[in-house]
Amino acid sequence: MRETADPLICTVDVVLLTLRDDALAVLLQRREREPFKGALALPGGYVHAQEDADAAQAAERVLRQKLGLVSPYLEQLATFSGAARDPRGWSVSIVYCALLPLAALASDTKAMAEATLAPVDRLPPLPFDHRDIVATAVQRVRTKSQYSSLPVYLCGDRFTLPQLQAVYEAVLGEPINKVSFRRKMDELGMLEPIAGEMSSGGAHRPAQLYRLRKAFRQALSLSERGLNGRG
Amino acid sequence: MRETADPLICTVDVVLLTLRDDALAVLLQRREREPFKGALALPGGYVHAQEDADAAQAAERVLRQKLGLVSPYLEQLATFSGAARDPRGWSVSIVYCALLPLAALASDTKAMAEATLAPVDRLPPLPFDHRDIVATAVQRVRTKSQYSSLPVYLCGDRFTLPQLQAVYEAVLGEPINKVSFRRKMDELGMLEPIAGEMSSGGAHRPAQLYRLRKAFRQALSLSERGLNGRG
Repeated sequence: MRETADPLICTVDVVLLTLRDDALAVLLQRREREPFKGALALPGGYVHAQEDADAAQAAERVLRQKLGLVSPYLEQLATFSGAARDPRGWSVSIVYCALLPLAALASDTKAMAEATLAPVDRLPPLPFDHRDIVATAVQRVRTKSQYSSLPVYLCGDRFTLPQLQAVYEAVLGEPINKVSFRRKMDELGMLEPIAGEMSSGGAHRPAQLYRLRKAFRQALSLSERGLNGRG
Repeated sequence: MRETADPLICTVDVVLLTLRDDALAVLLQRREREPFKGALALPGGYVHAQEDADAAQAAERVLRQKLGLVSPYLEQLATFSGAARDPRGWSVSIVYCALLPLAALASDTKAMAEATLAPVDRLPPLPFDHRDIVATAVQRVRTKSQYSSLPVYLCGDRFTLPQLQAVYEAVLGEPINKVSFRRKMDELGMLEPIAGEMSSGGAHRPAQLYRLRKAFRQALSLSERGLNGRG
């Protein structure tokens, strides 16, 4: 067998998902360079061997430099590779998935000036294999949300249980039984009530505000079975 | 930002798992070249841009050329990358996980001549980050086995339900309630009895032999909740 390494294009791309109008939306950016200059695409860039300790740090750098964003949740999704996906030649894209509440994006002038949000079920034409990448990310987030605290990353710091349930429903794309939802939140053990804090209520009765317990702000809480599992 | 790509080492590595003596074991091979020449390590190699359409095909080629093996199950596990993992410099390893029954390995002279099987909980010292990679693969296979047909890839073509339950227990590392197991197999709907075929029994009563239904030989059957989930 040959012993030499072929030179390959190695990039990171980031699927940043948020909730807008009760639907998952993905952040897209106009490409500044060829190929596909001017097209909306996932934010991404080359790995910089001198700067990035690993691919996760490359993804963090891309978010920071291109959008001024820091995502508390950044997980490796999968690696997309091959001869066919990039006109420049055989390429590797290590793809990360980030989740942010819309308010965190909206408060960032650079992010909003540079980016477009597209609903994941009504994507514009995307270059490379970015449509497949977004579909893979959405499927992963939906599957993982069935049995984990993942959707909390789409909420602000403080939320009521009905607000959190609405976020889970928006991510999963289907209604959840309220009793099952509350039992699941108890089982996950990740929430704590904020003492003395109630929502202002609006049209509804004021409701207790919750936040993530400190131990769960960096790590997911996992459940052994899904929200819509039987039993 | 810079516009040029840094040259990176891009390899694929394969975690091939099997069951031996009711325990998960990983296939290791002595490295033929520096770095770590002579050390036991995961089988792997450079991506060959001219030969491999994508990284999955590179992993298939590595299994075929180095071990003479074809694995019906080959899934991307994760990508391990960074400046610290390989003395040659910043490197990317796209890692695939394969599952094979021990009999399929034992019947292959090349595979057995070239390879060593090590129990995953008693690994020899491994170079690079291969110990972390094996741990990640074992965790993934255990998690996925809770709610899918994955362990069937470790069985032969024909098996009794008690044999299949023993495989699930070996993968999960814990006993499973027989009634729950049979209910889960019904729910997954992936098995069919082989008409007129009974195991010879040995010390036990002869038992019905089953096989995977055709639709599930290429794709996993998934369940919404785990074998040891409540309810």
